[in-house]
Amino acid sequence: MNSHAWTAPPTVMLTVGGNFHLGDVDPDSTPGFEHARRTGEHQLEARRDHLSDLQERLYAESRRREAPDAVLLVLQAMDTAGKGGIVRHVVGGVDPQGVELAAFKAPTDEERAHDFLWRVEKRLPAPGMIGVFDRSHYEDVLIARVRGLAPPEEIERRYGAIVDFERRVAQSGTRIVKVMLHISPDEQKARLMERLERPDKHWKYNPGDVDERALWDDYMAAYQAAFERTHTHEAPWYVVPANSKWYARLAVQELLIAALEDIDPRWPRADFNIETEKKRLAAS
Amino acid sequence: MNSHAWTAPPTVMLTVGGNFHLGDVDPDSTPGFEHARRTGEHQLEARRDHLSDLQERLYAESRRREAPDAVLLVLQAMDTAGKGGIVRHVVGGVDPQGVELAAFKAPTDEERAHDFLWRVEKRLPAPGMIGVFDRSHYEDVLIARVRGLAPPEEIERRYGAIVDFERRVAQSGTRIVKVMLHISPDEQKARLMERLERPDKHWKYNPGDVDERALWDDYMAAYQAAFERTHTHEAPWYVVPANSKWYARLAVQELLIAALEDIDPRWPRADFNIETEKKRLAAS
Repeated sequence: MNSHAWTAPPTVMLTVGGNFHLGDVDPDSTPGFEHARRTGEHQLEARRDHLSDLQERLYAESRRREAPDAVLLVLQAMDTAGKGGIVRHVVGGVDPQGVELAAFKAPTDEERAHDFLWRVEKRLPAPGMIGVFDRSHYEDVLIARVRGLAPPEEIERRYGAIVDFERRVAQSGTRIVKVMLHISPDEQKARLMERLERPDKHWKYNPGDVDERALWDDYMAAYQAAFERTHTHEAPWYVVPANSKWYARLAVQELLIAALEDIDPRWPRADFNIETEKKRLAAS
Repeated sequence: MNSHAWTAPPTVMLTVGGNFHLGDVDPDSTPGFEHARRTGEHQLEARRDHLSDLQERLYAESRRREAPDAVLLVLQAMDTAGKGGIVRHVVGGVDPQGVELAAFKAPTDEERAHDFLWRVEKRLPAPGMIGVFDRSHYEDVLIARVRGLAPPEEIERRYGAIVDFERRVAQSGTRIVKVMLHISPDEQKARLMERLERPDKHWKYNPGDVDERALWDDYMAAYQAAFERTHTHEAPWYVVPANSKWYARLAVQELLIAALEDIDPRWPRADFNIETEKKRLAAS
């Protein structure tokens, strides 16, 4: 099975357009993929080798040709929406040597003393790498806005700063793919309840998660504002319905594949004489 | 299938003992595993979930109980011996969020200006993590010795410094597993030839690799000296015959599993009242 399993590519179906309203997206839907879960799971397996092959070419290209290309996947979501599952089941399908993961927690005192993009800049993927941000600089216009951690004029400044920053990163050769995993409050409740019911999941549960639920609408408004202010050609946003974990994984896998296919990395040509080397090696 | 597929555990079969001589190890052998390749490959698959489960417990433990435990896998080998394959096929089987990879290349000017352990200290795995060193501080007593990059008395000093360093790391809670993947010169020749013959492998070939082959015996002597000087209870060396890639992967997987089983990480108990939280969540 290949990308034709989709009625339309996720890059088209899931992107944030001009009249986008987050409230119109059904978290239960599976846009562009009119098959059942089992087919989706097979598809995830079936596309793994293609993603892995593209990743290896990207890496190879940077070693020999000093190509500047990289990919940056930004993952944002409400708690339990499945960021970890994306990392494990989609990103985990490629060679770990080609991946740079960065999880952004609440900033430290040192980080807070700098501009909000300081810690982000340091974790940008090197050429040839797939970088993954588990949360990101968007927390600084999401929780920061909802919780009033910065004054409104500072939040305003940040939208512009993000657009400038991402443009520069894109111009340096990094394809940016920004994903919001979109779940419903009921789905979150069910997933949190599971964490309470299973002793092997207790460690993932934080009582504070329940408090955040009361602010759900504020978070959705903050996401909507972030989409409107920071969705650009160089760094597009995709909203991925995520009540079905299998669909979210499949969609993000396709978004990654599309970014890599856009780079179209090729095996570098040898910068040595192959026949000469064969003789030297044979004689060694 | 489980660890009983082995006639004796790799921790016992492959460790460097008192009278160890590298020259006595047959790179074609598969100590402790008297089955064919296909069985070995199935076994690698079959044990993946166990390794993955142990890794997740280790990670969970560090989040809640602030347990200091970590694992550090040090990989050393001649070129083409399969370090990359270990990372991809063994380490790649666990959640990438629980792994910290560090590849040590020739030191930069800044690194060279510091003691040789400076750059290594910075890449030690955090609690809860599996750290993997693709090459390591051992290069500073291997290539440094063979190529005369440091005077003999400095090499001597380094053996002692390594033992002190690794003892401190072990005492801080990190299980250290040091692996040398052992291939034969003929096997290396075949693998380098394959890199020359396949256009998708050219990027992995370096003409300098052939020059290093002339120093093979010197490298083996340097490894032997490193084993004799730095094999300790806290940081044991294992020599893994690696002409059979499947065997090397299987053996390293078992060595990692053994280190994790030794830690025996448990799911942390909830630090909140489960029934209270269920009620709060239900009402949210």
